Amino acid sequence: MSKLRVHGFSISLDGYSAGPDQSREEPLGIGGEELHEWLVETQTFQRMCGKPGGTTGVDEDFAARGFENVGAWIMGRNMFGPQRGDWPDDGWKGWWGKNPPYHSDVFVLTHHARDPIPMEGGTTFHFVTEGIEAALQRAQESAGGRDVRLLGGASAIRQYLEAGLVGEMHVAIGRVVLGRGEHLLAGIDTLALGYACTQHVTTEKATHFVLTKKS
Amino acid sequence: MSKLRVHGFSISLDGYSAGPDQSREEPLGIGGEELHEWLVETQTFQRMCGKPGGTTGVDEDFAARGFENVGAWIMGRNMFGPQRGDWPDDGWKGWWGKNPPYHSDVFVLTHHARDPIPMEGGTTFHFVTEGIEAALQRAQESAGGRDVRLLGGASAIRQYLEAGLVGEMHVAIGRVVLGRGEHLLAGIDTLALGYACTQHVTTEKATHFVLTKKS
Repeated sequence: MSKLRVHGFSISLDGYSAGPDQSREEPLGIGGEELHEWLVETQTFQRMCGKPGGTTGVDEDFAARGFENVGAWIMGRNMFGPQRGDWPDDGWKGWWGKNPPYHSDVFVLTHHARDPIPMEGGTTFHFVTEGIEAALQRAQESAGGRDVRLLGGASAIRQYLEAGLVGEMHVAIGRVVLGRGEHLLAGIDTLALGYACTQHVTTEKATHFVLTKKS
Repeated sequence: MSKLRVHGFSISLDGYSAGPDQSREEPLGIGGEELHEWLVETQTFQRMCGKPGGTTGVDEDFAARGFENVGAWIMGRNMFGPQRGDWPDDGWKGWWGKNPPYHSDVFVLTHHARDPIPMEGGTTFHFVTEGIEAALQRAQESAGGRDVRLLGGASAIRQYLEAGLVGEMHVAIGRVVLGRGEHLLAGIDTLALGYACTQHVTTEKATHFVLTKKS
């Protein structure tokens, strides 16, 4: 059965998923890029940027796993861009250039309707105003039997976790302290929601752990 | 100058410092003992329990550092025992037996006055009702130029952190998820308070990091 999966979601040592003051210049907020230090040198990420080489090993294995058997994607509106409220007519089409690394349907959670945006390479951004369950249903239909990857941000993941809809979640704790921002897990009792920690591996750059929903 | 230091304070992957439902049977709350997995096999901890042997390496180095140059100790009342409110006349003298591992003055933060309790081996528990600054002042006087170690729990550490009084704090993220309990860092902007992450080391059992107050 098609699962909803979170992969490579980076948080700080104090549990924040993005730094404060997100903007066009700082898409991950101040200090947020350091969170992904474990990821940026991996073969998977380098290939995504069209570059050869990259590291192999545990960090790479986790990076690669996030692209296996994924047929559609979901993200929160704040991950799609820095705008808030009604969509301004500014031609914003995401952070990822003309050919985003998704190559299939991406469902963006928003309270503000907008027409789909087809991009090069098979990615189409769809804007879903009917809530998280509706977005998941549309994504699963689009995925054609494969899984759906929930990209973030923290607020979207928290909503899906609290609804018990995330099947598996890989989190990477980076080696940075952010102080404030969006907290991923504070106040969410993952154990009571039926999750168990099924994997824990540390590398020099990150502490990886996986929460899996008991069926 | 005498510093206030936190060492070996263990939190879960989701940031909690003690499990829920603390009691005489479960002093660290349900699941809380797993937090200290990195510590219990170290030479320092084994020696504290009167046993020979124990592991050496990074985990041991962090355990040992918590006992270097410490002249007095501070802990919150909830760490001293499971009672809340007025002290019942039950002869409770802490979790640590007749000869606690502190061997000097320990200042217990409480709203409820109680006479000092002298123990074997040089430990005396003092009960301070005048607040965190008063406890720190008394501890520093007692420490005779050495540092003061703040043992916990989360609530006591949060108060000292927010007051900017902690000079250095070593936290160990264990390989367990707790879901609920006392959160150590959520809502505290350590960067704005003047702390920086000055060390980050991972081992198989824990992710160690040190926050240091800029002077």
